[in-house]
Amino acid sequence: MRAIVAHAPHDLRLDEREAAGDPGPGEVRLRLAVGGICGSDLHYYHNGGFGTVRLREPMILGHEVSGTVEALGKGVSKLAIGDIGALNPSRACGHCEECRRGLPNQCLDMVFNGSAMRFPHVQGLFRETLTVPEAQLIKAEGVADASLLALAEPFAVCLHAARRAGDLFGRTVVVFGCGPIGCLAVAAAKLAGAAKIVACDVHDAPLKIAEALGADRLVNTAANPGDLDDLKAGKGRTDCVFECSGHPGALAAALEILRPRGRLVTVGLGGAIEVPMSLVVTKEIEAVGSFRFDEEFAVAVNLIASGRADLSPLVTHRMPAARAIEAFDIASDRSQAMKIHLDLQDWDG
Amino acid sequence: MRAIVAHAPHDLRLDEREAAGDPGPGEVRLRLAVGGICGSDLHYYHNGGFGTVRLREPMILGHEVSGTVEALGKGVSKLAIGDIGALNPSRACGHCEECRRGLPNQCLDMVFNGSAMRFPHVQGLFRETLTVPEAQLIKAEGVADASLLALAEPFAVCLHAARRAGDLFGRTVVVFGCGPIGCLAVAAAKLAGAAKIVACDVHDAPLKIAEALGADRLVNTAANPGDLDDLKAGKGRTDCVFECSGHPGALAAALEILRPRGRLVTVGLGGAIEVPMSLVVTKEIEAVGSFRFDEEFAVAVNLIASGRADLSPLVTHRMPAARAIEAFDIASDRSQAMKIHLDLQDWDG
Amino acid sequence: MRAIVAHAPHDLRLDEREAAGDPGPGEVRLRLAVGGICGSDLHYYHNGGFGTVRLREPMILGHEVSGTVEALGKGVSKLAIGDIGALNPSRACGHCEECRRGLPNQCLDMVFNGSAMRFPHVQGLFRETLTVPEAQLIKAEGVADASLLALAEPFAVCLHAARRAGDLFGRTVVVFGCGPIGCLAVAAAKLAGAAKIVACDVHDAPLKIAEALGADRLVNTAANPGDLDDLKAGKGRTDCVFECSGHPGALAAALEILRPRGRLVTVGLGGAIEVPMSLVVTKEIEAVGSFRFDEEFAVAVNLIASGRADLSPLVTHRMPAARAIEAFDIASDRSQAMKIHLDLQDWDG
Amino acid sequence: MRAIVAHAPHDLRLDEREAAGDPGPGEVRLRLAVGGICGSDLHYYHNGGFGTVRLREPMILGHEVSGTVEALGKGVSKLAIGDIGALNPSRACGHCEECRRGLPNQCLDMVFNGSAMRFPHVQGLFRETLTVPEAQLIKAEGVADASLLALAEPFAVCLHAARRAGDLFGRTVVVFGCGPIGCLAVAAAKLAGAAKIVACDVHDAPLKIAEALGADRLVNTAANPGDLDDLKAGKGRTDCVFECSGHPGALAAALEILRPRGRLVTVGLGGAIEVPMSLVVTKEIEAVGSFRFDEEFAVAVNLIASGRADLSPLVTHRMPAARAIEAFDIASDRSQAMKIHLDLQDWDG
Repeated sequence: MRAIVAHAPHDLRLDEREAAGDPGPGEVRLRLAVGGICGSDLHYYHNGGFGTVRLREPMILGHEVSGTVEALGKGVSKLAIGDIGALNPSRACGHCEECRRGLPNQCLDMVFNGSAMRFPHVQGLFRETLTVPEAQLIKAEGVADASLLALAEPFAVCLHAARRAGDLFGRTVVVFGCGPIGCLAVAAAKLAGAAKIVACDVHDAPLKIAEALGADRLVNTAANPGDLDDLKAGKGRTDCVFECSGHPGALAAALEILRPRGRLVTVGLGGAIEVPMSLVVTKEIEAVGSFRFDEEFAVAVNLIASGRADLSPLVTHRMPAARAIEAFDIASDRSQAMKIHLDLQDWDG
Repeated sequence: MRAIVAHAPHDLRLDEREAAGDPGPGEVRLRLAVGGICGSDLHYYHNGGFGTVRLREPMILGHEVSGTVEALGKGVSKLAIGDIGALNPSRACGHCEECRRGLPNQCLDMVFNGSAMRFPHVQGLFRETLTVPEAQLIKAEGVADASLLALAEPFAVCLHAARRAGDLFGRTVVVFGCGPIGCLAVAAAKLAGAAKIVACDVHDAPLKIAEALGADRLVNTAANPGDLDDLKAGKGRTDCVFECSGHPGALAAALEILRPRGRLVTVGLGGAIEVPMSLVVTKEIEAVGSFRFDEEFAVAVNLIASGRADLSPLVTHRMPAARAIEAFDIASDRSQAMKIHLDLQDWDG
Repeated sequence: MRAIVAHAPHDLRLDEREAAGDPGPGEVRLRLAVGGICGSDLHYYHNGGFGTVRLREPMILGHEVSGTVEALGKGVSKLAIGDIGALNPSRACGHCEECRRGLPNQCLDMVFNGSAMRFPHVQGLFRETLTVPEAQLIKAEGVADASLLALAEPFAVCLHAARRAGDLFGRTVVVFGCGPIGCLAVAAAKLAGAAKIVACDVHDAPLKIAEALGADRLVNTAANPGDLDDLKAGKGRTDCVFECSGHPGALAAALEILRPRGRLVTVGLGGAIEVPMSLVVTKEIEAVGSFRFDEEFAVAVNLIASGRADLSPLVTHRMPAARAIEAFDIASDRSQAMKIHLDLQDWDG
Repeated sequence: MRAIVAHAPHDLRLDEREAAGDPGPGEVRLRLAVGGICGSDLHYYHNGGFGTVRLREPMILGHEVSGTVEALGKGVSKLAIGDIGALNPSRACGHCEECRRGLPNQCLDMVFNGSAMRFPHVQGLFRETLTVPEAQLIKAEGVADASLLALAEPFAVCLHAARRAGDLFGRTVVVFGCGPIGCLAVAAAKLAGAAKIVACDVHDAPLKIAEALGADRLVNTAANPGDLDDLKAGKGRTDCVFECSGHPGALAAALEILRPRGRLVTVGLGGAIEVPMSLVVTKEIEAVGSFRFDEEFAVAVNLIASGRADLSPLVTHRMPAARAIEAFDIASDRSQAMKIHLDLQDWDG
């Protein structure tokens, strides 16, 4: 079996690995279909990690994948051979204090595929086959094509963020940063009934994709920073901001356009940012973080499978696994790429 | 009538002003009793203002006062001569979009005594007499001594912050910064049923006052920074932090000790602070600002008047209005003073 | 000017009334376009009122109408002649304790068109012309046809109910009773992102309309009561129920299918109902009432005007005002009618 | 070892049972100290059960007990011999869908001591000794006398109800029904910072106990039903009602005195009650059930152990286990008894 393995910064290889074994009780063996390249995959590729999370041994990358069931272990009751679905890369322990509080996404002993946070690292999902507990594959009812299901994981991140935003129904929402997470936040806010969604970025290309996913208004904040001025009227007229850019300037702008008690949801990792606290205090802003997902993974699969969420505009490139290195380089260039999908059944190009 | 008037930085005078006139319909004339010096009064005294708020004409200082009714206008129904109470310095317009949303503390046209935010400035309350609409005086039932009622305003600020914190009942609470606001936040959290309250400061003297107001545990974060380590266990064990210090270090420490989805309430103005956003995101912290108060003013008066909240440990100095300049100098020295109360009936010392 | 006036039970007349006068400052004169017959109109028609609310003088019926601006008073700034919109029949006082708490729909001094709650009664909107403060007409941008705008009022009721339901995004929702309010609750839940909406009624015809408005599954609870059994699994699998039927049996069924801490929103008036409290307690059900609307009226107009909410399946009959009595009789027969719209410009049939 | 065993209605026996065995790994053996008689114990005694829950085999009664550790199994880390604490009678499975949602009190596979809900029944705690997992005993720090700790269980029920009530800080609260649960709800609301607590009952004796636990005002609703009239002003002036009486009249009164969006918390089981739904709807009441407890058990132990909650007025009788039958008869007479505590170390009287 082949897999896409990061050995060190800029040392990405298509290695041969032992094929997935027969499924044990309650397990299934999957043939993986499509894999999406995520920002954290790119961090491993370029920098060998991020923050204190560093590669200490070769690790298969990838945690956004879809696949098909090809073998069933004993006692498997919810899946059948041929079922198509998305693979949930997170496994909470179910026993720690956070799991018991009902916060599995905050599990103290989380196992997450394709992450170097633990050692030995938890190997990732850009591979040909994999054996997993049946609960990890979320089946997509009535779906013949697995490709868009590889968006279930990042979409679940954004559905979770939308939940953290509270009630969005009929609200005015602004999204800063239209990378894949920002664009999917637009799609999530639309589905949650936001009345007006303003997408902001410093490039026009991602704004067009945000529009295709539901944004009602586009603002290139580099070219036309004044375009947000109407949202600053009074003490601010925006109910909710999704901050997906990581730029200090976006956070400052968010605090100006949010109305009193408005909600600022921060998605995606970032470093230290200087925050004008006087606006947080005087406008009583509610700034909340959003991290990973929980039950939203299944919701994401259903929304994609039923066609209620058409996320296809997000995928700008589809390439064979064989051309992984080229794909990683393209994915690193925001001016031409949004989401790159790898065909995990094509290892010969 | 005399009043304490700020003319410019370090130019504080006891000026003669025209006495309060006869109360019109729905108004009462008050004889003021006690006035507490607040941090913003000190900013006017030392710097002529703060941020963009600057003295542009002489202004009577003060907005934390108690007083007695000495004359009634026509149609006054809820007050009688001799009634004692605390004066609410804030008057929301009742008509703007924020008032209509039920957020009078966010009023776009707020009139607040002793504030240079508007021009002409709204004159303050360190004076002998004043005529106001009857709704501004919140009567304290069964109280003979008005002195502690001058704490109603800052206490209301902290009761509002406790409301912003959500449910504190049975929770573990940490307060950073034990100035008057921090100490009153301790008292508010205690009344709201917090199970464990940890007070933090870099000086021991304010910690002792926090203890008298209900703190269960005291941490001098300058001398013993490791004393908070037990609250960092797991992903953090603190349910709520009140950040009343304005120090970046306190904010960073707060993010470490808060549990996932823990709530960080920021009270009091501050400048720009560098915030480690990755902790906000991964722990899904909820950081909310708290500004002024609304109905909590009446709650504060009742808690003080009934004796349920004994805030007397907060008042370290009582001085005649005649010695106002000396009082402002003492109030500026955190090593010896917490809250200074001025006797607004003693102008001859 | 003609108007549809209830004089007594089953005594409905097309009376001549004085035409609307010239608009004063801040007012506009409207030519009404379309009026929808509501359940409370039918109560006046059949019974002369409901509960303690009784006709004590002739009253023009109607509160669900759209119209066009035909004259402007001085100082009108947001409307122009020819503007089309929906007329908000509710005017909160802005001064009472509920308005000040931010709950204008609970105003203690509410003026509501076409309601006999006050005396003299507040005359209704089934008429040719009317002069109102400009804020009462919510303009529909870019709309040429006013007919569906007459649904803004009942739709606002259901948007408000959806807000009372809390976060519906990705949730399983069941609606009991598919009259106009139940059907519009289906539409509201769909827009708020509900993942699965089950509509229940004892007739098939209204279920078909609920389906057209977004229901994913239809249950005729008279014919197939067992169809809800899967939602009773475990301790229940339904996140939210909208109870719009007024039937005790529906409420009992709701308590069985709701999951622990599930939310039961009751919309629409009803009498006393026997509630099995042991289920409310052991499952910790959250049962909340929903009454009228607030800012949701403008949201409703926008959703209809932009086409995001296509409510046209709801309107089963359009008839001239001239045939009002016949229209009221048809509207009273649930087996053939859902929502009847009257053409308020056609008084001669 | 002796135990108090219900065999059938009015057939309560002091039976000899096998003594608790040596503790296994992670277990402790307890010597029980004090046991409180609860309403459900009385239901087994008088009626052999309630609703569908019926005695089908002899069952040791009791689930409100304190005790002392007398032997440690291997690996016990948090308890030592001689430790005093309260025994948590509930064990959630940790695996079912409700546990995974963070709602262990809604566990689908709950094991609860002294309950006939499962078969074989889960034996109760009115006994001399017991071996349990160490997590079941919540240690009371610095406590020499175990007697009041037997109130931890019913107090936890009321702390949970106070949590379900939302923010009580500064609120006006009314409690209907001053049995043990109602009185402990008064104590919980007081600790949560309620500004005004009105206790209602049809007898004066329990009202006096409610007063000792913190009620600010007492209303005998049989003698003086008009005493609540001031709370009906406007649309109602009560923020929260705890309904602990089970009387339809109390529920109707609650709906009249609650303010719009007021919260009605129902604690304790009851049958079907006729509810005037029109008040629920027009005032948008939020009626929520409260069932058992979760982390509140540990909070209850701490509040009792630290003396912050002085619940001693609740205990009207202390009797030896030897006189259990007499004790059950006294406990059944509300006119003389509130909470009866049995000395579980005195079996010879």
